Amino acid sequence: MYLLGIDVGTSGTKSIIFDLKGNIISKAYAEYSLITPEPGWFEQDPEVWWNATIKTIKNAIEKASIKASEINCIGLSGHTNTPSFIDKNGKPLYHSIVWMDRRAEKQSYYINEKIGMEKIHKITGVKIDPFYSIYKVLWLKDNHPNIIEKIHAILQPKDYIGLKLTGVFFLDKALASSSGYLDINKGEYAYDLLEEIGFPIDKLPKLVLPYEIVGEVTEEAEKLTGLKKGTPVVAGSGDVMVNAIGCGTIEVGSAYNKMATASDIVVCIEKPIFDKKTRMVFYNHVIPNKWLLVGGSNSGICYRWFRDQFGFIEKEIAKSLNKDPYEIMDAEAENVEPGSNNLIFLPYLAGARSPIWDTNAKGVFLGITLNHGKNHFIRSILEGIAYDVKHRIEIIEKDFGIKINEVRIVGGGGKSNLWRQIMADIYNKPILLPSGSEQECFGAAILAGYGVKIYKDIAKTVKEIIPIIDIKEPKKENVEKYAKLFKIYVELYDKLKESFYSLSH
Amino acid sequence: MYLLGIDVGTSGTKSIIFDLKGNIISKAYAEYSLITPEPGWFEQDPEVWWNATIKTIKNAIEKASIKASEINCIGLSGHTNTPSFIDKNGKPLYHSIVWMDRRAEKQSYYINEKIGMEKIHKITGVKIDPFYSIYKVLWLKDNHPNIIEKIHAILQPKDYIGLKLTGVFFLDKALASSSGYLDINKGEYAYDLLEEIGFPIDKLPKLVLPYEIVGEVTEEAEKLTGLKKGTPVVAGSGDVMVNAIGCGTIEVGSAYNKMATASDIVVCIEKPIFDKKTRMVFYNHVIPNKWLLVGGSNSGICYRWFRDQFGFIEKEIAKSLNKDPYEIMDAEAENVEPGSNNLIFLPYLAGARSPIWDTNAKGVFLGITLNHGKNHFIRSILEGIAYDVKHRIEIIEKDFGIKINEVRIVGGGGKSNLWRQIMADIYNKPILLPSGSEQECFGAAILAGYGVKIYKDIAKTVKEIIPIIDIKEPKKENVEKYAKLFKIYVELYDKLKESFYSLSH
Repeated sequence: MYLLGIDVGTSGTKSIIFDLKGNIISKAYAEYSLITPEPGWFEQDPEVWWNATIKTIKNAIEKASIKASEINCIGLSGHTNTPSFIDKNGKPLYHSIVWMDRRAEKQSYYINEKIGMEKIHKITGVKIDPFYSIYKVLWLKDNHPNIIEKIHAILQPKDYIGLKLTGVFFLDKALASSSGYLDINKGEYAYDLLEEIGFPIDKLPKLVLPYEIVGEVTEEAEKLTGLKKGTPVVAGSGDVMVNAIGCGTIEVGSAYNKMATASDIVVCIEKPIFDKKTRMVFYNHVIPNKWLLVGGSNSGICYRWFRDQFGFIEKEIAKSLNKDPYEIMDAEAENVEPGSNNLIFLPYLAGARSPIWDTNAKGVFLGITLNHGKNHFIRSILEGIAYDVKHRIEIIEKDFGIKINEVRIVGGGGKSNLWRQIMADIYNKPILLPSGSEQECFGAAILAGYGVKIYKDIAKTVKEIIPIIDIKEPKKENVEKYAKLFKIYVELYDKLKESFYSLSH
Repeated sequence: MYLLGIDVGTSGTKSIIFDLKGNIISKAYAEYSLITPEPGWFEQDPEVWWNATIKTIKNAIEKASIKASEINCIGLSGHTNTPSFIDKNGKPLYHSIVWMDRRAEKQSYYINEKIGMEKIHKITGVKIDPFYSIYKVLWLKDNHPNIIEKIHAILQPKDYIGLKLTGVFFLDKALASSSGYLDINKGEYAYDLLEEIGFPIDKLPKLVLPYEIVGEVTEEAEKLTGLKKGTPVVAGSGDVMVNAIGCGTIEVGSAYNKMATASDIVVCIEKPIFDKKTRMVFYNHVIPNKWLLVGGSNSGICYRWFRDQFGFIEKEIAKSLNKDPYEIMDAEAENVEPGSNNLIFLPYLAGARSPIWDTNAKGVFLGITLNHGKNHFIRSILEGIAYDVKHRIEIIEKDFGIKINEVRIVGGGGKSNLWRQIMADIYNKPILLPSGSEQECFGAAILAGYGVKIYKDIAKTVKEIIPIIDIKEPKKENVEKYAKLFKIYVELYDKLKESFYSLSH
């Protein structure tokens, strides 16, 4: 008995076959790229996702040396806030508008004026921002009304894959909540609000639960993928939500910290708490009656930026040693005392999202002296990204009154022992590393197993099959040192925001 | 007929033989190091300077293949604010306390309380700061009163060399004015003030003019150096003043900008203008009835810092190409548009001197985005050092009402065509490059030639034998771009000074 988890990511799609104990039997990955028709616009063709999915499913089955009929169920995950515009035959009518696309600024200004941030946030849990699917759809309505008319359903990437596998149009509730469509309190589409803002409500598909079986693999899908016709497909959810399952963030007070390009902090809470400043957003958890508080940023990308711009030698050495360049950089950073000899890095190279929300914000190295070398710069980046997450943790705990007991690490950054210790010291929390590194596909597969009743209880299953393989406890002397530097760090943005604005205009 | 110029620098001594047209016939250099008995303390042994001088004179004469008797006169230059404590036999009683030494903080606080910055500045032209010789002498008096008693004369480095060559104790007026000893308005020792603060006035040597013949080479000096007994020695002056001669900053409104470790701006003015904020200081010019307005900083060192910490590849490539690593770095910077794509560098890696005077100030890179590469960082350093000089130029012109017509470049940084264009664009002034790169020895040799009446007029001589070999005119489009960025730059220190303080405490 096996489970298949599929994750439709922004850069590529993964298909992974797991056994029921959560062991990876085989995996396959296929890359694709973004279409950038204008500056700030980012698109993808849903058929490219489907082709990548076909390829990786075939490949994974082949590598696993199992029969397709041994796969008991399929679960889905994918990037969020990338609406696709699909006709009744399952054909895309327009490229999907990817989450990072900023074209819907006019629509978001309009809604801000007409409805206001507070009301939107109270009803939907999210913000007014071109990031959210709801504004992207409004953009299409304003600019291509003829396309809107022909749409049968607006889907998210993994739901498009679900459609191709089963022929059924659907959208899971948790993913819907992150798109701005849902009344987060009622758990159904926010009909009154959507009507008020002129959203094409009739284009939204049937709402399902993330662990609901939505359909079975069709004959056509069998031919293309090699899956067995009739295999049940479970809805799954967006990557943010599925990650919470995949890493075990299921109890209230547990949080996960994704450390990759994104560096999100996601906390499991018992009810949404609305913040007048809308510094963070709230999604439905996959688990009923639980919510996710989400504070997302792109600060993680700064470490890759440094590797690519200043890590030429590290890349060369890494090649010779058959290692990852980040391992060499980590070793250099480890040679430096905590606090990087008072060098502070502001990781806003791609602007600032939560809690600052300022696209003009920029990166800063501050406190440089003649005694600072490259290794201090490397360590200060690891610390600066952790300060950025700490900034949100502090608001969550102090302003929202939510206690975070532990932080689980998801994403490539979690591989670094040094970085996890830095996080423990800066957050002043134990940092837990769950086994495996494929949390999206893992979470999707667990939902699939629960959907077909192989697993009786999600929380229990996760605890059993996703052991914590490392815990870093905060070290008192470092906690104090970092608390002092964090205080300086957190004041810097306010001091510099006007300069950032001037540099951008 | 030849002239010999000797410069006693902080890192080494140079002896250069010139013909009367200013051509270098031969040069010799000998290095030495600093003694650092405690953190913040820097000392040198005057006998080390003398040994280096002996060696380089011998070496220069030998290389020139001339007879020592063909040297018509010797001129001197040296670092300023490094008092030496000499007994009546010419023997040092204590190590010389080098300009960068900070031990006299207590003495400077005391004088600030007793007399106050404004009065000191009005009388002496300089500031209250452990940098100035006057406070270093007070430290010796407070800590080693028995040594003070035995002193015959407190000399500066090049005056110690003058003593060794001629047997005469002296100090030139221009150098005296930079030591805090002189009443800058009267042109003589500030007797009343020195008495009030308890300075051992009787230990100051005879005051001479910088172009005065102070004595002749002794028999003893002949034996040691190979110079001809009886060769006249002219007093010369400190490097800051002698540079003004060596690069041709002789007319009112002319300025020079030293671009090396130091990045000083020095302006020839017709009378000192006192600034309540004491952002800059005033020295006597070598030329009577002219003064030098001096705004000094160490920002230039930042380019070397970047080379040493991040320029590993550039150093390797330079070695292969038999070039200077800075040439490679300049070429990389040239590939970037003026303004470094809005990346701004604050060059306070060694703290900030004029006009900010804050030892807590630190370096900053601000405005980093994912599109910035190493070449942007390199260019931003060249620009940031120029902004630092511009900061002082703006105060000189706007607050002091002194018009600077042109800026001459002295020091290693002047070799860079790119950097000189950046300076022209940022200062919005023509940047003149004088021929030769040995302005200190050059200036000393011209003073020597004037002292023995080979030259009739210093200004005319300088114009004839120091041609300007390159002029960079400001480019309008860059001037505007940089003016906008400079406005942001100059506001940053005020925004960040508290953070710098917190990082230092």
